[in-house]
Amino acid sequence: MTSGKLISGKEVAQHNSRESCWIIVHGKVYDVTEFLDGGSKIVLKYAGKDATQEYDPIHPPDAITTNLPPQKHLGPVEPNTVEKVKIEITDEEKERQVRVSNRPHLDEILNLHDFEAIAKQVMTDKAWAYYSSAADDEITNRENHAAYHRIWFRPQVLVDVTKVDFSTKLLGHKSSMPIYITATALGKLGHPDGELNLTRAATKHGVIQMIPTLASCSFDEIVDAAQPDQVQFLQLYVNKDRSITKNIVQHAEERGIKGLFITVDAPQLGRREKDMRMKFTDDDPSAVKDTGSGGIDRSQGAARAISSFIDPGLKWDDLEWFKSITKMPLILKGIQRWEDALRAYDLGLAGVVLSNHGGRQLDFARSGIEVLVEVVTNFKAKRGISFPNEKFQLFVDGGVRRATDVLKAIALGATAVGIGRPFLYAFSSYGQEGVEKALTILRDELEMNMRLLGAQTLKDVGPDLVDTSNISAHLATIPADRLYDNNYESMRHAKLRALKDQSKL
Amino acid sequence: MTSGKLISGKEVAQHNSRESCWIIVHGKVYDVTEFLDGGSKIVLKYAGKDATQEYDPIHPPDAITTNLPPQKHLGPVEPNTVEKVKIEITDEEKERQVRVSNRPHLDEILNLHDFEAIAKQVMTDKAWAYYSSAADDEITNRENHAAYHRIWFRPQVLVDVTKVDFSTKLLGHKSSMPIYITATALGKLGHPDGELNLTRAATKHGVIQMIPTLASCSFDEIVDAAQPDQVQFLQLYVNKDRSITKNIVQHAEERGIKGLFITVDAPQLGRREKDMRMKFTDDDPSAVKDTGSGGIDRSQGAARAISSFIDPGLKWDDLEWFKSITKMPLILKGIQRWEDALRAYDLGLAGVVLSNHGGRQLDFARSGIEVLVEVVTNFKAKRGISFPNEKFQLFVDGGVRRATDVLKAIALGATAVGIGRPFLYAFSSYGQEGVEKALTILRDELEMNMRLLGAQTLKDVGPDLVDTSNISAHLATIPADRLYDNNYESMRHAKLRALKDQSKL
Amino acid sequence: MTSGKLISGKEVAQHNSRESCWIIVHGKVYDVTEFLDGGSKIVLKYAGKDATQEYDPIHPPDAITTNLPPQKHLGPVEPNTVEKVKIEITDEEKERQVRVSNRPHLDEILNLHDFEAIAKQVMTDKAWAYYSSAADDEITNRENHAAYHRIWFRPQVLVDVTKVDFSTKLLGHKSSMPIYITATALGKLGHPDGELNLTRAATKHGVIQMIPTLASCSFDEIVDAAQPDQVQFLQLYVNKDRSITKNIVQHAEERGIKGLFITVDAPQLGRREKDMRMKFTDDDPSAVKDTGSGGIDRSQGAARAISSFIDPGLKWDDLEWFKSITKMPLILKGIQRWEDALRAYDLGLAGVVLSNHGGRQLDFARSGIEVLVEVVTNFKAKRGISFPNEKFQLFVDGGVRRATDVLKAIALGATAVGIGRPFLYAFSSYGQEGVEKALTILRDELEMNMRLLGAQTLKDVGPDLVDTSNISAHLATIPADRLYDNNYESMRHAKLRALKDQSKL
Amino acid sequence: MTSGKLISGKEVAQHNSRESCWIIVHGKVYDVTEFLDGGSKIVLKYAGKDATQEYDPIHPPDAITTNLPPQKHLGPVEPNTVEKVKIEITDEEKERQVRVSNRPHLDEILNLHDFEAIAKQVMTDKAWAYYSSAADDEITNRENHAAYHRIWFRPQVLVDVTKVDFSTKLLGHKSSMPIYITATALGKLGHPDGELNLTRAATKHGVIQMIPTLASCSFDEIVDAAQPDQVQFLQLYVNKDRSITKNIVQHAEERGIKGLFITVDAPQLGRREKDMRMKFTDDDPSAVKDTGSGGIDRSQGAARAISSFIDPGLKWDDLEWFKSITKMPLILKGIQRWEDALRAYDLGLAGVVLSNHGGRQLDFARSGIEVLVEVVTNFKAKRGISFPNEKFQLFVDGGVRRATDVLKAIALGATAVGIGRPFLYAFSSYGQEGVEKALTILRDELEMNMRLLGAQTLKDVGPDLVDTSNISAHLATIPADRLYDNNYESMRHAKLRALKDQSKL
Repeated sequence: MTSGKLISGKEVAQHNSRESCWIIVHGKVYDVTEFLDGGSKIVLKYAGKDATQEYDPIHPPDAITTNLPPQKHLGPVEPNTVEKVKIEITDEEKERQVRVSNRPHLDEILNLHDFEAIAKQVMTDKAWAYYSSAADDEITNRENHAAYHRIWFRPQVLVDVTKVDFSTKLLGHKSSMPIYITATALGKLGHPDGELNLTRAATKHGVIQMIPTLASCSFDEIVDAAQPDQVQFLQLYVNKDRSITKNIVQHAEERGIKGLFITVDAPQLGRREKDMRMKFTDDDPSAVKDTGSGGIDRSQGAARAISSFIDPGLKWDDLEWFKSITKMPLILKGIQRWEDALRAYDLGLAGVVLSNHGGRQLDFARSGIEVLVEVVTNFKAKRGISFPNEKFQLFVDGGVRRATDVLKAIALGATAVGIGRPFLYAFSSYGQEGVEKALTILRDELEMNMRLLGAQTLKDVGPDLVDTSNISAHLATIPADRLYDNNYESMRHAKLRALKDQSKL
Repeated sequence: MTSGKLISGKEVAQHNSRESCWIIVHGKVYDVTEFLDGGSKIVLKYAGKDATQEYDPIHPPDAITTNLPPQKHLGPVEPNTVEKVKIEITDEEKERQVRVSNRPHLDEILNLHDFEAIAKQVMTDKAWAYYSSAADDEITNRENHAAYHRIWFRPQVLVDVTKVDFSTKLLGHKSSMPIYITATALGKLGHPDGELNLTRAATKHGVIQMIPTLASCSFDEIVDAAQPDQVQFLQLYVNKDRSITKNIVQHAEERGIKGLFITVDAPQLGRREKDMRMKFTDDDPSAVKDTGSGGIDRSQGAARAISSFIDPGLKWDDLEWFKSITKMPLILKGIQRWEDALRAYDLGLAGVVLSNHGGRQLDFARSGIEVLVEVVTNFKAKRGISFPNEKFQLFVDGGVRRATDVLKAIALGATAVGIGRPFLYAFSSYGQEGVEKALTILRDELEMNMRLLGAQTLKDVGPDLVDTSNISAHLATIPADRLYDNNYESMRHAKLRALKDQSKL
Repeated sequence: MTSGKLISGKEVAQHNSRESCWIIVHGKVYDVTEFLDGGSKIVLKYAGKDATQEYDPIHPPDAITTNLPPQKHLGPVEPNTVEKVKIEITDEEKERQVRVSNRPHLDEILNLHDFEAIAKQVMTDKAWAYYSSAADDEITNRENHAAYHRIWFRPQVLVDVTKVDFSTKLLGHKSSMPIYITATALGKLGHPDGELNLTRAATKHGVIQMIPTLASCSFDEIVDAAQPDQVQFLQLYVNKDRSITKNIVQHAEERGIKGLFITVDAPQLGRREKDMRMKFTDDDPSAVKDTGSGGIDRSQGAARAISSFIDPGLKWDDLEWFKSITKMPLILKGIQRWEDALRAYDLGLAGVVLSNHGGRQLDFARSGIEVLVEVVTNFKAKRGISFPNEKFQLFVDGGVRRATDVLKAIALGATAVGIGRPFLYAFSSYGQEGVEKALTILRDELEMNMRLLGAQTLKDVGPDLVDTSNISAHLATIPADRLYDNNYESMRHAKLRALKDQSKL
Repeated sequence: MTSGKLISGKEVAQHNSRESCWIIVHGKVYDVTEFLDGGSKIVLKYAGKDATQEYDPIHPPDAITTNLPPQKHLGPVEPNTVEKVKIEITDEEKERQVRVSNRPHLDEILNLHDFEAIAKQVMTDKAWAYYSSAADDEITNRENHAAYHRIWFRPQVLVDVTKVDFSTKLLGHKSSMPIYITATALGKLGHPDGELNLTRAATKHGVIQMIPTLASCSFDEIVDAAQPDQVQFLQLYVNKDRSITKNIVQHAEERGIKGLFITVDAPQLGRREKDMRMKFTDDDPSAVKDTGSGGIDRSQGAARAISSFIDPGLKWDDLEWFKSITKMPLILKGIQRWEDALRAYDLGLAGVVLSNHGGRQLDFARSGIEVLVEVVTNFKAKRGISFPNEKFQLFVDGGVRRATDVLKAIALGATAVGIGRPFLYAFSSYGQEGVEKALTILRDELEMNMRLLGAQTLKDVGPDLVDTSNISAHLATIPADRLYDNNYESMRHAKLRALKDQSKL
């Protein structure tokens, strides 16, 4: 428990070791000595210092007070006694800031890919690595988008499409589009307002935001930022300590959350090597040298550092307990095979999200859109029910970049599609305005493509509008014969006269 | 109505704002204040000035007088009082003009790809962007050609092919080849003579031109340029105001048009991002800055600017009305599934064009050649009729670059194939002579390939000459494992001795 | 008829026009005025001059005397009166000669691809273009090799392969390998000894050479270069004038030729654009300018120039005539579908070559190896016979580069495989020694691969040793989504410390 | 037999020719004149000199004494009389040594690919060529890994995976993972401790090492380096002289080897061109010139040089003899079709390794993982037995780089997976520590992926967890149409303002 006395920065500065480690966050001093673990190296870097700047993008403001026992809250630091942590702006950072100031005008952003292209250039390397990384060789990550390329349209013509309406309902709640903002962690890495960018843009566009457990804004901040009638869902990582989970769930229900999406594809958070590699680039090379291979385990990206609380023991039997603690509709997020979707249905849940966690968990997991086809087929065969279906809703996420992707999922039976990274890239590049622009683009594309498909409402977007015959063709072409190919000389086209000299390949 | 009085350039120059906007076109003054809309920014640029140069490549000469009410025709401008719009020739433009003068001799053009390669270099960026652009990620655009790559030949030998004859009839009218020049908009963007290049070349080669609604020459100019016995078709965008459409159709019939191709795949013209991006490159960057995201909507390419009149409410029921106003054969252009082709047949139309609008509308629409296979199969199964068929003709367009492509379509049941962009590239590079050369190349290739297929006439070009077993294999290979591939070292071949030092990859 | 009088070079020099065109070849003067045609431009270049150097690589020595009526043989030129045609050695040619002298030692050539890699660098551009070119976009050309990549092995183990024997019989004649040297034109373009390189190497290695109609050595030269017991076949282009063909065939039979391979896939020789483009590079640009598009047709590669005699009227009925003029076994070269193979069988011919002319005729013709599968299947179903079969032999050519390719064809029923371009590249780089090395490499690979397949003789190489389930999968992957791919960042591996700065892609 | 007398270096130096060739190895003089054969050129290079340095990485220490008859052991050389073989350190070698000292810290190695990337840079060219090379165009080599890309996961969720256990038994012996270190030759090429690196790391990690016949450490050295209870297997190349093989086998059994893996896919070692090409780079170019094409056969890589003893006559009947000389379980290594696996089963052997020798023998052999599917299917159909199966175990090797690969093989019925090259790259880069790190990485990945698959033990990893529908799709995409593709202009994304100038492709 803290006395009212101010602690001097000098005193704090003495507790700068593994043996006694104090840090300052938002003007308060905390003793974190007993909580140093695998991720401790980063904490130690700030031992005895003000860690606010490092703390903020990773943790919600209340994380430290919630997780640290009261007696470790040592009290406020005496202002102006804390030595500034001098932040050197590297040349690399300066170049990044030039790039930031040279962002193209938002009008020049024509599609969701554009946000990604800009974000890659204006985000810090660390934030980019965390957002863009995925499991192992990132094959599932890209397959998520590529799978949509194996679905083609069969548009119908001569339908009156003067007015098209693509509004819909998710778990009974209105959405202006068959799209929701799915849960993604650490929003402040990309923008100081973090997840609030999403909340505010969702308000304006009438879409639903799914609040992540690992938000860097606090849950209440995000709910507070919403309008009174704004619908929000909650994504839940289940804690090993179920009482914490119970608190979260019941608090969410009280605050008006309309659906609980329990993540089931992450008993352990994935190894994301792009993210992990960042650690070594970041750090002082001499330090790296010293720790040696027998030293502390440095091979953890941001993902691992923040997720040790997740319970790998979560199992089907636990779902009854969830039913007992909340009346919110329960949806399993991360279903990857029809058998599990059917089991969720038989247990009376409200739906499933066919998802592989954005390719961030198990590489070679199939895409949600492919699993959707198998789920719909098997529900028909085994339970005789069709989709979309109000009683049991199918959601899909991963790889969506265009309204055409969205409409393919709808045609195949999804109620709505979750989009994650594109919105992160949008606010990392342009804040809330970026997210709004992204939603505007999706709306424009949806309107256009509904017309071109000959569909007046989403009810018209059925399986006869798509050709999915190749959806399960996961084809890796065999390696080419490079000697033969090297020798082959490409065809040349006619050349301008002045350019003839260069006309040989 | 205009008085006879000349208006001074000085007076015109004062009407240079959104509140009062006059422009000069071909020496006459027009008040366009009330007609400023989404595309108005470009118009405002010429407010109070002579806009002829900007106007010409986009609109037929009579467009302004037809569309503007008589009272807005203010009368002729006083010559020599108009301040010249100084056209600065940019360095980029100078370089382009050097490229134009260095075009290879027409004899060096060996195939239709060559025209495209040259056009890309000698056209203005704006024209290239408009002609070459397509929807979204342009996947359907390229699939249109790629689909032909999934069809292989089964040529027969030892047939006397001393003489081969590939003439045919389209809607009962002779054509020297199973090819027609399909409708494409804004011909003057590529060449001052615009669509007339096509008309004149069609005369010489005995092929049929389909006149576009959005030609930059007027309909009558194009008909006038034809020979008395020259057959022409008309492509029609149906206007929201049906009386305008009725006038167009009946005027066309009077002028001797032999077929009416009603476009049904464009209730709204597509977002073509390459074209849209051009806007931002073109414009004054400071201006861009000022308008801000809340300003006017600048995100429109040429396509949108010229197409707001198209009726998205056009539907099957409207076809009876067309039958009532014209005796011309009616063909639906833009059919993309067998169900719609069958419906057109059942309604007694003359045929359909299996087309996705050159990939410019809905991305992931399938290619016409693939749809052809499905249409022929289903007509056989459901109506017992075969193709080619004089009563109901199938046309295909999109992606055709070689006579082999043409012959594949014929073998599969098409009556003829429409070619569009290659002719635009031909006249953009070489005017009428370019189009003639393109037709000569196609003729030469057809003659050769008929011989190599062992076919004396088009009747011999049947389905047994092709292997279409892979036509529906829309395969997107799964992303490769880049770490593994990066490590793999390509095989090296033997090297010249002097080059050995570079022999390591 | 020529008098004995010597003609002075000065006199010859006056006949240098289209009206009167004399040329000197090998010291004799010929009046070719009446024989100027499409290819005449090149001839006119030498009008009044000594054309020997241009003549030699394209024509056999006796071609001019055979084809020109005796009265046009004007007699010998007076030595030392002929002005030398000054041959300027261009810088490009000098560089080529440096490359020639830097060829790697023949021991460094490890496979057939190596010859191609070297030939590409040491041959003249013209010769390379003629040898390597193929039809249209050269897709069949590469498919010929690629098709072998769709066949995989199912090797058996624990067979005693101490001794392996891959000798066989072609049309009853022994061959040390299931390989023959197939007919290819214009050998002297690559090497002064032309086809004789092949004859001599064939002797040493006990393989059979197929003599081409369009050899640049004369037929008799090639036969004379063979050993008494050496077996040779003849490839025949059928002349419009059948008496010429009859002479050729009966002369061949007299000279001991053991098989007549009638080419049926070339009623007209293909447009090979790489070859055609060479013309424009070669020629004087000012000349090109002058001729204009209405001038003479320059758009012909070497292939067309030498092949106008071929009869496009050749048909099935003509085969009886062939039977009547020769007792040699008749084989059709260029069969591309099972129906035609079956017809040849029913007509009692000795076999067929499943071939698409090295991809030089009809682009998108299927590969011989793929057609082989369809032929064997249909012969079994329709005639109940199996392959290999002594009564009716199947040969395959096109795309063979490795012994694995050869053994795949054997496993599928071929008697032997024809190899063409690799031997051209071998002698163009190293003369006869090159061809011998190529044959040695094939022999070594065959021995090794027979062992690894667990086959003691070719009889053991049956269909159970291969997996052909993908042979007909002509898959063109659909175009990728480039915006998405551009944004995707490849995985990076660990980097050397010093190289870290470059570690960003 | 040698007298005790020391031989002077001077005397040795006189025996430096093909006629009399002495060499010094580890201070002893040997007369190898009668044993010069194909590989003799390298030996002759050291004739009359100290060859130890060249000898060591290729041969185990006892090889020369074992293989050379006692009378050729001439006795110890007189120290200090031997002229040093001056070893020039080339610039290339110096650069390599800089790279070695700049290796990244072992903590930065995140996956098995990283070892390969580092090894490629820090190994000698010769060693890299030997380890990385494979047969012909190395298509099977890469297919081995690519085949895993055609298998996708169907993970199950909501299983309690707090504890996962992936230990297993191979031939009844415990292994901490379903992975063994497979046999690979010439370990000292990569690291002075050679195969001992593997032995020691295997101890620490509780995995089984398969000792190779062609180890560069002696068999006994490797066995001696193991812990008393450490299980080791032996890979056997069968010698033409069966008494040698008998000695090896019985000695191995005495020393406690627990399984005999008889290699059956290498009656002759493959031509590995990357390895062969190294010879020419290595050698003195003048020497190369002199030998000429008629000279000695230089076209042999390291593989051939060391393998002439292998018996190509080994056959099924020989297996009875093996049963008669040992009680060790017999496993055939290199089975590539179900028929042979079934025969091994019917003969009562203990199992088979489905392998193509790392792609080093027959190019276009299928991958082990693909053959596994066919084997399991056929055993079920023909013998009614399932896998994994203790009585007859299936092993797979080739292309494994990730735990996902391992788990795919397990799901399909394999008992364990052999890994070879990655461990070579690990110790070539970091010695024993590297191998340990590699095993740690695999363990970490296995733990993670077991969790993500929802599997508590390997028994849970069954066929329903994978989708193998594309496993046999060996797809070579057909060559693209390069003219068309060249003309196609990629989509561009939005660009930073400062970068706009470069925004054109």
